[in-house]
Amino acid sequence: MPIPDEKIFPHATGAAAKTVEQHQDPQELVFYAGWFCPFVQRTWIALEERGIPYQYKEVNPYKKEKHFLDINPKGLVPAIEYKGKALYESIILCEFLEDAYPNYKPKLLPEDPFERAYARIWLDYISKSIIPANFRLIQAQTPEKQQEALADFNKALKQFAEKIKGPYFLGEQFSLVDIAIVPWIVRDYIIAENRGFKREDIGSKWVEYASKLEKRDSVARTSSEHYAEIYGRYLRDEAQSEAAKATRAGRDIP
Amino acid sequence: MPIPDEKIFPHATGAAAKTVEQHQDPQELVFYAGWFCPFVQRTWIALEERGIPYQYKEVNPYKKEKHFLDINPKGLVPAIEYKGKALYESIILCEFLEDAYPNYKPKLLPEDPFERAYARIWLDYISKSIIPANFRLIQAQTPEKQQEALADFNKALKQFAEKIKGPYFLGEQFSLVDIAIVPWIVRDYIIAENRGFKREDIGSKWVEYASKLEKRDSVARTSSEHYAEIYGRYLRDEAQSEAAKATRAGRDIP
Ligand SMILES: N[C@@H](CCC(=O)N[C@@H](CS)C(=O)NCC(=O)O)C(=O)O
Ligand SMILES: N[C@@H](CCC(=O)N[C@@H](CS)C(=O)NCC(=O)O)C(=O)O
Repeated sequence: MPIPDEKIFPHATGAAAKTVEQHQDPQELVFYAGWFCPFVQRTWIALEERGIPYQYKEVNPYKKEKHFLDINPKGLVPAIEYKGKALYESIILCEFLEDAYPNYKPKLLPEDPFERAYARIWLDYISKSIIPANFRLIQAQTPEKQQEALADFNKALKQFAEKIKGPYFLGEQFSLVDIAIVPWIVRDYIIAENRGFKREDIGSKWVEYASKLEKRDSVARTSSEHYAEIYGRYLRDEAQSEAAKATRAGRDIP
Repeated sequence: MPIPDEKIFPHATGAAAKTVEQHQDPQELVFYAGWFCPFVQRTWIALEERGIPYQYKEVNPYKKEKHFLDINPKGLVPAIEYKGKALYESIILCEFLEDAYPNYKPKLLPEDPFERAYARIWLDYISKSIIPANFRLIQAQTPEKQQEALADFNKALKQFAEKIKGPYFLGEQFSLVDIAIVPWIVRDYIIAENRGFKREDIGSKWVEYASKLEKRDSVARTSSEHYAEIYGRYLRDEAQSEAAKATRAGRDIP
């Protein structure tokens, strides 16, 4: 029996559909993506920002097909094949692109060792504090749990927002930190409509930052229109993705 | 009232005590450490491996003293001050040392972009799968929960062990992946004595790897004798550390 998550709208729409169309030719770098996935969008933005040649391949990661599991034994998108070798994990892929394509601009991590480590601290913060709180908020079912989860999520986001130097997180330079968070900004209308989230509750600095980021070219070019359908199952806490199951079980999301 | 974790044995013992003694002089890099902490030991091993000059400062992170919170607002060791600026997070610190001290040898991450990303995948695996399972095992109270947690932990470790190229995780080169896991090898007698863990249950590859790693000079020089006392509170699930509380609440450890 197909698990519910297997039936997803099969391809990107809107601006992202055009971007997919432009990246069908074979390339040294094959990008295994799901149009709907916020983690995918991170790596996708990095590819687009830096103009790295890539071939886009749509994968439904919930189907766990053999060829895909050979590429990523965790069965998650994004993943890449590069000169026949496979890698995965959205942020690790972005860092890989920095290292493997040093001549493509802009660089997305600062060159200065201290600034670079500082950026990594906030990447880590997004992974450990913001994303898990976002999953808990979406999956929370009772009004009390939803309120508690919203307070947690807002608190995590405020701590991040305080550190925005402006216009981007690190200042003038658009970076991996912005990339790591923006897919959840693009999708925040889901929690606005269903969980009472308001950008204004985070503060005016956040409102400005969020609206600047979502308008960025590489972000717009990788954004689709049908996110709401995907989230129905999360909002009813029926999703069977690894992240949804981990959230339900009180485990780290993979 | 002092929380229980505040009363810890105040300083390193055994080989680590000598290393501390040799690193009291002021240096550009100040290393804020807790002798007992496995995360600290990671950064400490990296410093020792590469012969980077540093000043060791013992901190009791559970006391959350003002000066220390100014350095790491998360209130966790390890942290460093470098030319007056602060950084934290064990693995981020190790990567910072790679970037900030490029001429100190050995390098602990491969130069090749693919190999480097591959190493990062397994660093991520250690953080997300092995360490949380280890905390759950130590804090599990009933025999059923302990058995379940041991099975989980062994499973996570086996998946890692399968990938050991030997003698080190990545092959001939000792790397950050080995550093990230070895503090939990040094301390595994705690779960052997209290939770039925056996290295042999992971397989002969693991037994060999573990015993090779724990004998390495930088590892021995940063190891103390009194770990068991620290773990008493964890084993009774009374610990009030951030990691212990997160584990109890089914949250990501910070
Ligand atoms: N930590 C991973 C998470 C990736 C992830 O969870 N991807 C989801 C789609 S958004 C997936 O592939 N899910 C398949 C499944 O859970 O079975 C990353 O950053 O790349
Ligand atoms: N993710 C952190 C974890 C560091 C950590 O948890 N350190 C513990 C000691 S082993 C600590 O400082 N605890 C103080 C507390 O929990 O209040 C790292 O890798 O550096």
